[in-house]
Amino acid sequence: MSALPDWSLAPAADIARAVSDGTVEVREVVAAALARIARIDPAVNSFTDILGARAIARAAALDAARARGEALGPLAGVPFAVKNLFDVAGLPTRAGSRINRERAPAARDAALVRRLEAAGAVLVGALAMGEYAYDFTGENVHDGNTRNPHALGHMSGGSSGGSGAAVAAGLVPVALASDTNGSIRVPSAFCGCFGLKPTYGRLSRAGSFPFVGSLDHLGPMARSSRDLALAYDALQGPDPEDPAATSRPAEPALPDLDRGIADLRIAVAGGYFANRGDPEAFAAVARVAGALGVTGSVEIPEAARARAAAYLITAAEGAALHLDRLRERAGDFDPAVRDRLLAGAMLPAPFVERAQRFRRWYRDAVLDLFREVDVILAPATPCRAPRSGQTSFVLDGVALPVRANLGLFTQPLSFIGLPVVAVPVWLDDGLPLGVQVVAAPWNESLCLRVAHHLERAGAVRAPVAALEGAP
Amino acid sequence: MSALPDWSLAPAADIARAVSDGTVEVREVVAAALARIARIDPAVNSFTDILGARAIARAAALDAARARGEALGPLAGVPFAVKNLFDVAGLPTRAGSRINRERAPAARDAALVRRLEAAGAVLVGALAMGEYAYDFTGENVHDGNTRNPHALGHMSGGSSGGSGAAVAAGLVPVALASDTNGSIRVPSAFCGCFGLKPTYGRLSRAGSFPFVGSLDHLGPMARSSRDLALAYDALQGPDPEDPAATSRPAEPALPDLDRGIADLRIAVAGGYFANRGDPEAFAAVARVAGALGVTGSVEIPEAARARAAAYLITAAEGAALHLDRLRERAGDFDPAVRDRLLAGAMLPAPFVERAQRFRRWYRDAVLDLFREVDVILAPATPCRAPRSGQTSFVLDGVALPVRANLGLFTQPLSFIGLPVVAVPVWLDDGLPLGVQVVAAPWNESLCLRVAHHLERAGAVRAPVAALEGAP
Repeated sequence: MSALPDWSLAPAADIARAVSDGTVEVREVVAAALARIARIDPAVNSFTDILGARAIARAAALDAARARGEALGPLAGVPFAVKNLFDVAGLPTRAGSRINRERAPAARDAALVRRLEAAGAVLVGALAMGEYAYDFTGENVHDGNTRNPHALGHMSGGSSGGSGAAVAAGLVPVALASDTNGSIRVPSAFCGCFGLKPTYGRLSRAGSFPFVGSLDHLGPMARSSRDLALAYDALQGPDPEDPAATSRPAEPALPDLDRGIADLRIAVAGGYFANRGDPEAFAAVARVAGALGVTGSVEIPEAARARAAAYLITAAEGAALHLDRLRERAGDFDPAVRDRLLAGAMLPAPFVERAQRFRRWYRDAVLDLFREVDVILAPATPCRAPRSGQTSFVLDGVALPVRANLGLFTQPLSFIGLPVVAVPVWLDDGLPLGVQVVAAPWNESLCLRVAHHLERAGAVRAPVAALEGAP
Repeated sequence: MSALPDWSLAPAADIARAVSDGTVEVREVVAAALARIARIDPAVNSFTDILGARAIARAAALDAARARGEALGPLAGVPFAVKNLFDVAGLPTRAGSRINRERAPAARDAALVRRLEAAGAVLVGALAMGEYAYDFTGENVHDGNTRNPHALGHMSGGSSGGSGAAVAAGLVPVALASDTNGSIRVPSAFCGCFGLKPTYGRLSRAGSFPFVGSLDHLGPMARSSRDLALAYDALQGPDPEDPAATSRPAEPALPDLDRGIADLRIAVAGGYFANRGDPEAFAAVARVAGALGVTGSVEIPEAARARAAAYLITAAEGAALHLDRLRERAGDFDPAVRDRLLAGAMLPAPFVERAQRFRRWYRDAVLDLFREVDVILAPATPCRAPRSGQTSFVLDGVALPVRANLGLFTQPLSFIGLPVVAVPVWLDDGLPLGVQVVAAPWNESLCLRVAHHLERAGAVRAPVAALEGAP
């Protein structure tokens, strides 16, 4: 296998082009990806299920279709993997838990898996995640921690830790993930890759295991803004089976990707988003702002309150979802997840009701800001990836628990469903940091244009991890 | 004043006709109403504010307009009064409470007050209610209990007790009220008048003091189905200021009122709605069903669970609304209201979240029933009006607290916003009972047609109380 070119390290766009023009067959791409996963993943621990037989059969079918002269789609032959809260036919949808492994295997793939495969992509596996997505670390007592490919002793971030690590380790060019309070953006920042948390309601959640119905988003992660846009475009479009269905038509981002940023009003988020982080978190934002020529700032009002409200709603809705499991199977949860869900189970309802009321006020206030600006920049995390197992860190001189505070800067934005692209910044030879590129609802394409401009300017990049010390 | 004919006892339709054709001047109607209120209300205690000066000035303005040849509208000269949770310019909107009396006077009338006055009606006062509308009895520690005009030692029902009592006592032909879990239908039943709880979102709530945002409805009460329809039609139409605004256009009910019921599929609610009440509650339903020639029944699924869910949502949303007042002014609440709100303040959020989820399921299940039937009949209350101060009663052999259980049959219907007309049934010389005439959302006109048919058939009626023992 080592004689094959390592196609799994190629951008999705290149793979699709090479497959479509006959430069390479899908089975070669898939074989290379499976080989790399087999070699690398034991060190990273990003996969919970490797779907070799399925992927090889799918590759053969695609190659046969191409041989018959059929067009394979914009993701022809591109391997991808999905956070294990997406239904995959034949697997129980475990959502990072032990309890869910007892579920019946899914009868059908999730809607977004079907969409990527309809565009020619090949599912190669399911990816590790924090239990029931209630996590920012990438640690999991049932499956073991997912390691940061750029420094194996550090956290991958979570809850989509497997997705971030698999992409950063070069195991797949594209992964699917979910983001309720930051679960795409935190691992994108820690693993140094691009992640898109789309507008609430944009991408179908049909066939995925939920966490917080009013906050759950699904989206792609990739090593380039172009691959991110390519995947995003293939994922879009209304779906009557989506529990949060909107009738929003697809609005492809790829055609505008190279349009530049001359027409965009961009500002840095001040106030809340300029405090309570390591200086390097703000240095990363400054690096991005500098590359964009941005000097102005805007203040997102009541962001601290928004985070608190997101916390309350998350705990309460999450506990409502898991109430029966908490009663009957408390011992089978990850204790760190269980204890937060139990706290949520006892949260007084009027607090949550008030949080919902505040959400409506806050949404209107933030939407008002977008009359003045098109894009807002903010740090993705308050720090670089902590060491695995680290439970506290110091922010602005105050020791705080790690798990609860990694989403400090992501929660106030997903709370009202704004689209965000997390872009990876490397300030030095150390671990990367992430910057959030935020737009008004339904303006994902603006976030992607900014990310692409930054990438072309060399300000952000998502290299494959060197994996020093890995086999 | 006793020389004047007692126009306040006339139907609203007759008053409007007499005013419009010059048979009577508005000032005569208003003077008669004010005189009757002054004479009768001390025994009934339905008014908290009598707006004599305002009403007389308004009457003079209407008479002057008529003298100029202007048309006065379909409610020309009709006196009405409103539950004191409606804003009335110049009065603090007390919502039955002591605490709210310290509020600034309202700057403007509530939307529905303005609509009735735009149709020519004349506001004569504000009406008593259970504190913050959390009540089915009509009892109020601050203002004294509102008495049932048909038996002064009995409850008026609540929380719109003042509205029911004022209409039944012949003080006004039309009153406005609110219904969250039954607060129009219970006093309509106990006081023997007609009450309309419209579809959720139908009538504007702008300028009214809320209780439970997702359950609050406003509507009219009257002594005839025609007056009810007349008021309802004047109240309809979209209002951008309504917090629960729909863009539903007005759909007048009056033109169809006499259409009869030949085209309607009507059934009696079985199961839950045929148990846990006094035999006479079901005898009242049977009387109505007999008059309509109805023999079939339908079962509303999971109605007991719907009532429980309505309870949870009410307690939690109500507590969220009053949380600051509970913290700072607990001693100034009616204890019976305060203690239920405090319980709501401690209700675990996941219970309420689950209640909301159940609500979606239940709504779909009940809407399915309306493929088979157009109108469903159910008792309004499990019994006739209890004695004032009575705290427990026996239903199906079980002693239960009165206050919490008078809404047994109303809660599962308002829970999903169905339109209901409560019609008054007199089985004997004792107190009346109410029957709910229920339709699918937005089909108020069907409820009103059925009520009107029953009234013409003599099966239901709303006589002015004899007020034996009153001055």
